[in-house]
Parts: sequence; C-alpha cells; structure tokens
Amino acid sequence: MAGLCPPSSVQPLRWNDASGRIEMIDQRVLPGRFELLAFDCASAVASAIRSMVVRGAPAIGCAAAYGIALEARRLQHLDRAGFAAGMSTAFELLAQSRPTAVNLFWALQRMQAALAGAQPQAPSAIAGLLLQQAHEMLAADVRANRAIGAHGAALLPQTAQVLTHCNAGALATAGYGTALGVIRSAVADGKRISVLADETRPFLQGARLTVWELQQDHIPVTLITDNMAGYMMQQGSVDAVIVGADRVAANGDFANKIGTYMVAVLARRHGIAFYVAAPLSTIDRKLATGASIPIEERDGAEVRGFGELRWAPADVAVRNPAFDVTPAELVTALITENGVLRSPSTAGIAALFDEPD
Amino acid sequence: MAGLCPPSSVQPLRWNDASGRIEMIDQRVLPGRFELLAFDCASAVASAIRSMVVRGAPAIGCAAAYGIALEARRLQHLDRAGFAAGMSTAFELLAQSRPTAVNLFWALQRMQAALAGAQPQAPSAIAGLLLQQAHEMLAADVRANRAIGAHGAALLPQTAQVLTHCNAGALATAGYGTALGVIRSAVADGKRISVLADETRPFLQGARLTVWELQQDHIPVTLITDNMAGYMMQQGSVDAVIVGADRVAANGDFANKIGTYMVAVLARRHGIAFYVAAPLSTIDRKLATGASIPIEERDGAEVRGFGELRWAPADVAVRNPAFDVTPAELVTALITENGVLRSPSTAGIAALFDEPD
Repeated sequence: MAGLCPPSSVQPLRWNDASGRIEMIDQRVLPGRFELLAFDCASAVASAIRSMVVRGAPAIGCAAAYGIALEARRLQHLDRAGFAAGMSTAFELLAQSRPTAVNLFWALQRMQAALAGAQPQAPSAIAGLLLQQAHEMLAADVRANRAIGAHGAALLPQTAQVLTHCNAGALATAGYGTALGVIRSAVADGKRISVLADETRPFLQGARLTVWELQQDHIPVTLITDNMAGYMMQQGSVDAVIVGADRVAANGDFANKIGTYMVAVLARRHGIAFYVAAPLSTIDRKLATGASIPIEERDGAEVRGFGELRWAPADVAVRNPAFDVTPAELVTALITENGVLRSPSTAGIAALFDEPD
Repeated sequence: MAGLCPPSSVQPLRWNDASGRIEMIDQRVLPGRFELLAFDCASAVASAIRSMVVRGAPAIGCAAAYGIALEARRLQHLDRAGFAAGMSTAFELLAQSRPTAVNLFWALQRMQAALAGAQPQAPSAIAGLLLQQAHEMLAADVRANRAIGAHGAALLPQTAQVLTHCNAGALATAGYGTALGVIRSAVADGKRISVLADETRPFLQGARLTVWELQQDHIPVTLITDNMAGYMMQQGSVDAVIVGADRVAANGDFANKIGTYMVAVLARRHGIAFYVAAPLSTIDRKLATGASIPIEERDGAEVRGFGELRWAPADVAVRNPAFDVTPAELVTALITENGVLRSPSTAGIAALFDEPD
C-alpha cells in the first residue's frame, strides 16, 4: 500500500485497499500456521483483540483505529444521527476489548478527536478521513519504533545476549517492534546480538511469536521456559534485559505481560541492565503510579493447558492475571522515540513529552 | 503389604509381593490417566527414572533401591562371580539415570553396603536381604516425611496460603511428601492452609501432580503459571513458600527444580518466609557449596512443547536445565526429620546429623 513500505519482514496488520478490510496475522496459530484473517467492522476487530488474534499494546492501538475506520465505512450510508449512534457504540465496544494496554484508549481518543473535527462533513467524507487517520497512526507507530530502535541500540554492548519476555516485536506493533526493534537496530548497526526468549506462559508469545519473528530476520535466538531466567542470569548468560510495556504510569511504573516483574527483580539482584522500550502513546500520564493500572484477569482455561490440550484437572481453581506491574525503581532506562530516560521519574517522563523527536 | 500402611492417599511406588515386581504410578500421564507400571529389573527401573515415570529425589532413591533388589532376585540363580558382575552393572546403570538428586547415590550406597555386608551368603539369600533393605528404606522415608511434616507444621500460621514449586509431595517420595508433607501435617493440626501451585514448566509437575495429589486429600489448591509468583506476592497472597530439594550442600545451598531460585529471590524481596523441606538423605556433606552440584540438562523437545504437542519452531535452539541452585542465604529454614534449622550454615547442618530424632 502507498506510504507503507514493509518495516521488517513481519507486519501483523495491513490494510487491503481492494477488499476494504484490515487483514491481521492470526497470532493464536503461529508459528504452526501463517493465516491472515480479514475484518470489516468494529465488532469483529474488538473480538479479534479480545481473543488475541492481534496482541501487543501498539498493535492493539492500530487495530482499534482501523476498527473505528471500518465501522465508519460500514455506516457511511446512514443519516447523521444513525451514524453518530453507531460510531458511539463502536467506540464503546472497542474500549471494552482489553483493559490494561493504554494504547487502545489513546488510539480511540485520537479517532474520537478526528471524528469530532470532521463533524460538519457528511458520514462518507468522515469515513474517508478516519481511514486516513488510521493509516497515519500505523505509519507513525513504525516511525516511533525505528526511533526507539536507534536510541536503544546505542545502549547495547558490541556483543551481547539479551533476554526478553513475551513478544514486543514487529508482531506486537505496526511493524519493527519496540524491544525487538532495539535488537533489530543493534544488529543493523553491526553488533553481535543474540536473544534469550522466555516462552511466556500461558499464551506462549515468546516460544511462538518472538522465536518465529527473530528467525524470519535470522537473528540468533534461544528459547527457555520462564522459570529459567534466574538460572541463566546466575550463569552469566544475560547481558541485558529489554521488554515492552502495555501501560507506563506518570512515575515510570509500568504494566507488561505477567512475569515481567519477576525478570526485573532478578535483573536487579544480578546487576543486569533492565530496559523498557515503549512509544510515548504507552505512557498514561493520568495515572500517578502503577498501583492504579487495571490488570486483566483472563479465562482459567489458558492456565490449565494450551490450545486444545488440557493437562491440569478441569476443576482446579486458577488465577490468570495477564499482566503485572514493575516499579520504576527496577527500570534502568525507558527507551522512547523521544530518547532514553535513565532511572525514570515523574519529572523525567514529563520532560520526554516536551522534547521534539 | 506388611509394615507399609498407606501414608497418604497417594503412593508412587509399592512392592507387589505376588508378582515380585515394583509397581510405580506413571507420573508422565497423570492426572489424565492413572496407570501403574510394573518393573522387574534394574535396567527397567533406570529407564523409568530417566524418563520420569518416577521423579522426586526421595522417590528416585527408593526406586533405585528396589532396582537393585530386583536385579539381585533376577540374578540369584547365577554363581557368585556372575552375580557380582551383574550387580556391579546394575549399580552403574542406576547411578547414571539422573545426576542431580543425591538421594539416588545415597540409596545406592546403602544398597552397596548391604550387599557387601551380606557377601558371604549365597546370591538367593543376598537377594532376600536386599529386598528387605529396600522395604526398610521406603518405610524410613515415610517416617522421615512425617517427622518433617510435624516439625514444619509448627512454622505455619493458623491461616496461610503457601506457595510451592514443582511437586515435593507424596508422589515425589515414598509417600506423604516433604513440602506437601508439611502442609498435610498443618492441615491435620487444624490449620486453614491453602496452596498456590506453580505449574512448573516444562514437565508441569505442579499443574499435573501437585494439584492432583492435593485434590485427593481435599486440600484447597490454586494453580498459577510460574511467572505469576511475583504478582501473587505483590498482591499479598503468599504467606510462606515451601519447596523440596534434590541435593543440599554442606553449607545449605540447595538444588531443586528449575525456577526454585527465582521464587526464593522474590520471597526475599517481599519478606516472605522461604522454607526447604528435605530428609537428611538429601544432604550431600561432601559438597562444600552448591556451586559443584551437577545440573542435569534435558532434551530440548521438553521446552518446545509438552507431550506430543509442539508449539515452538522445531529448529529453535533451547536450553533445558532441569534444576537450579539457591544459595543458603535465601533460605529462612531447612526442615528435616531431625528438626528445623533456621538460617542454614555449615555448622548448623553438621549439628543436624548429631541430633537424634
């Protein structure tokens, strides 16, 4: 599509101009199957977000933007009142799809502002403007990831094994990736980087997505179970940790995939640098600290097995928080498109928003 | 069988006098299937240990003892020289079955001493003595677990949620369990104990075995993935941690299932008591510290999926250390059949061996 050259070998979502649909890689079935699913309305996109066809805070934001744009196209033949009512329902539906990642709400606010700004125009014209806005947000996310990559790559030594948790890669964004974007940039700079990927139960984003995505780019990767990270640090096999974020509070506390907090505690014990790579759209300045970030609790079936396979007794009680919150004091630096913030604090984060790229 | 009343509802191995075989619960297929497998020679028992039909340091020790006893019965019609050569091969085979748990070597030494002591006698008489010795070791392990349980139960508050990693229960011992023995004893004492079970990738001993075993005894249990332990501690949902051990060094450092170290680091950060429950047979006083405990590295296929299911790319590099070592400084107390040792040290551990039960 015009203006959207492939940012890496992997693009989780792309607009199909011929069909007028957004196509997404079904991340539930990777790497066993590579399947593109097409979506044509807000409700289908909301359900794709809920069921994790698409996941990763920035990718969810882009998907939600397209969900709004698609709904506007679908409803463009209604009168103004019908259009407005339908759009309002679409915003609500998407806002309820996943609670923790703030990029979703950020993207919906941007789309809401675009809708409000276009209000005097006819629904069909508004639909065109909203689609343009979604395209721009997707392109901006890739630009932000590339800037994060460039800033972050400078932090890594010439040779390093980097541990990452979950998938904060091209698949979690509009392309290129945040944590994996830093690794891609370091590799592009000629650094010898290998990746240690936590498998990341229960959804196995590390084992399935991070491994697959790095293999597409021929970046060396070794898979471990989540509970091996401490052992690898004890053995001196981890030179740095880089993870993404689903929501960063004003003081630098951040929510990310469940298990991130454990990795941060271990990195601190072993004196290993712990970096968070995230675009400014992930920062929620309305939340003073991480304590008020809502933590999604998902279906217990995910913990009792994987996919169709169940290995635990069907009737066992389960907890399944999808995210945890890591305090800012455990973060060596926050890597954003506006630069690197060491020892994140409320003042430091506020300053990030004042600086141009 | 005479002298071996069921110590809990679950017994991972039991002698079948009618068939002259040792029967073991196949722990690879629990809880989906409850299947007893029968073994009649050392080589079959060694392969059961290697493939984790039976697992858990004390249970492995008992299985090895029966492996020797079975081999003696099988070879009892040979002449002395043939018998001695066959027994020597059996000891070697069993010693190679798993490297980390020291109870295996401890049990083999006991059997070797029994064999040496019985030497003037005919092979058939020796075979009878070795079987008696295996029975005694199994009964002694249950007695030790009950003593561990009694000592450990006193450490728990009246109401507590206890986190455990892997399975140090009846299934990991001759019956009753070490870590879960403490929980059983506390429950028997009228304490309100619930258990938080780490699923324990890659073999899922927590999700499959700990959950199943506690359900048999109607002890409340909640299952989490390994990477949720930190979150649960942050939420104040963990009052104490109790784990077993595969080998304890002279200074109190100990090897246990991979991931134990991470739980210990987190418990320290959160000021939560971290207890290790293990019989004296698990203590290897020949090793000054944990640094020289051999760590078994198992097949990568275990990490790429589970059972027949594979979710990671088949060609991805994998690490699969089966154990890690936790330094003594992270251990609140070591619970043995000879009592509770707070802040384990070389002197304290030496003293444990001087005290009668």
